[in-house]
Amino acid sequence: MNPAVSGIDISSLTASQFATVYNLFSLVIASMVFTALYLLLSRGRVAPRYRNALVVSATVCGIAAYHYFRIFDNLKASYPPGDTVGAAHALSNVEFNEAYRYVDWLLTVPLLLVETIAVMALGRAASRSLLWKLVPASALMILLGYPGEIAASTGARAVWGGLSTIPFLYLLYVLFIELSRSLGRQPEEVRTSIKRLRISLLALWGVYPIAYLFPIIGGDFFGGANGFVLRQAGYSLADIFAKAAYGLVIYKIARVKSGIEDSQYDDDHDDHASVAPTSRKQRDRIPSAA
Amino acid sequence: MNPAVSGIDISSLTASQFATVYNLFSLVIASMVFTALYLLLSRGRVAPRYRNALVVSATVCGIAAYHYFRIFDNLKASYPPGDTVGAAHALSNVEFNEAYRYVDWLLTVPLLLVETIAVMALGRAASRSLLWKLVPASALMILLGYPGEIAASTGARAVWGGLSTIPFLYLLYVLFIELSRSLGRQPEEVRTSIKRLRISLLALWGVYPIAYLFPIIGGDFFGGANGFVLRQAGYSLADIFAKAAYGLVIYKIARVKSGIEDSQYDDDHDDHASVAPTSRKQRDRIPSAA
Repeated sequence: MNPAVSGIDISSLTASQFATVYNLFSLVIASMVFTALYLLLSRGRVAPRYRNALVVSATVCGIAAYHYFRIFDNLKASYPPGDTVGAAHALSNVEFNEAYRYVDWLLTVPLLLVETIAVMALGRAASRSLLWKLVPASALMILLGYPGEIAASTGARAVWGGLSTIPFLYLLYVLFIELSRSLGRQPEEVRTSIKRLRISLLALWGVYPIAYLFPIIGGDFFGGANGFVLRQAGYSLADIFAKAAYGLVIYKIARVKSGIEDSQYDDDHDDHASVAPTSRKQRDRIPSAA
Repeated sequence: MNPAVSGIDISSLTASQFATVYNLFSLVIASMVFTALYLLLSRGRVAPRYRNALVVSATVCGIAAYHYFRIFDNLKASYPPGDTVGAAHALSNVEFNEAYRYVDWLLTVPLLLVETIAVMALGRAASRSLLWKLVPASALMILLGYPGEIAASTGARAVWGGLSTIPFLYLLYVLFIELSRSLGRQPEEVRTSIKRLRISLLALWGVYPIAYLFPIIGGDFFGGANGFVLRQAGYSLADIFAKAAYGLVIYKIARVKSGIEDSQYDDDHDDHASVAPTSRKQRDRIPSAA
């Protein structure tokens, strides 16, 4: 094995291990493709200033969908079926390319921060200042994680993982300390959502380093095929929550803010008795005027 | 080796050299596809006169995506996997076709100049005069570079490279001397952006001749497989910056100009307190007037 290529080549997956990863990848593809479409189709339901946040969220899901199509095909090529149904899937001559994930994250993680800042609609100077800190730090975090992912030794994996943690801590500082100064300008209802958004970002992004650590934990379970399945499951589910579900939360915040700022976007429910009759009255007025 | 076919056939790539180029090509595909989609989806956020600049930028990214899909498949066919994961990828009977890049550039480099002029929204006569100089010169620059890229001898590579530099210098003259006469008509904020745009064009386009020169520099490193990887990395990253990132800068300039010229496009941030209430008042006035 060439140590520069892949840290953990699993020589064989049982049929059920293969099926688990295969079905999870397919779940991610469906989630990403249709969340992207839903977000694009829903653009008109938020005020114009929030539409960019939705388009960026859809772009994140689209980029992830592209990479999962590639990862899915790669899995099939790396672990082709055995001689019979139920036989083990042995590693072929095609490497299982974990780098797709890093290419994906390099593009999507900065964009996730862009959509988070975009939905807040802060002042121009505050937005720019936050993005200049968040985007480079997040790209650096991904770039430093990659050499550890493909490292053959768990020692190198730990060192690069540690280096990658430095920009991650800086991100947390910016999100939890600097951003808080801008939160006072947000309406109460939105302030709570943004705080929840921030906590969920922290919780979700926490799954990635845990999945990354499995080979370091090692042992028969975490270092072998079960660890591989668990790592793929961890990355896949974290991607669904951190991209698709997160995009839907961004949409929800944009809807709420749009409704607060302009009553034409506050049209989902019947409980806006004070608003609805007015607009109904306006509608009623048109025929009589005609 | 047929000298007319390819100047530098690399007989074998290590697994990690192959993986590096493979992942970079996939990164370019994702960047181009989703930048193109993002630009198309964002057309409505700039004034009508700037939408053509966005559509042309998206077209450039789309053309590049098409060619990188081809290059990606070509790489897999030219350097198939060895017997095991981690083994070297030896050159097959399928040539690695560097000409895809020249076909791509022949279409995209003139279009990059078209989008640059389009976003400036100069007078009709000034635009036409600049484009009649920039577009033919840029096409000539690419056409003269191609025989050098496929030349077997580094001497021929140097001669064609030198010839290709003549229209490049003419492009610089037009962009830095002639264009400056039109800059006075631009708003201050935009003038700075356009100057930066021009500098980044020069800096980015400078990467291509450097990558082109690797085989002339020669030696074990630049003339061999490492030089191949470095050349592909140089071309790929330069393409991402000169097409996708450049298109996003064009979009940003179009947004700023749209906002200056028409306040309905200046709607992203909360710091336009003076604008929002007015438009709400205007809306309120409409029913009472009717």
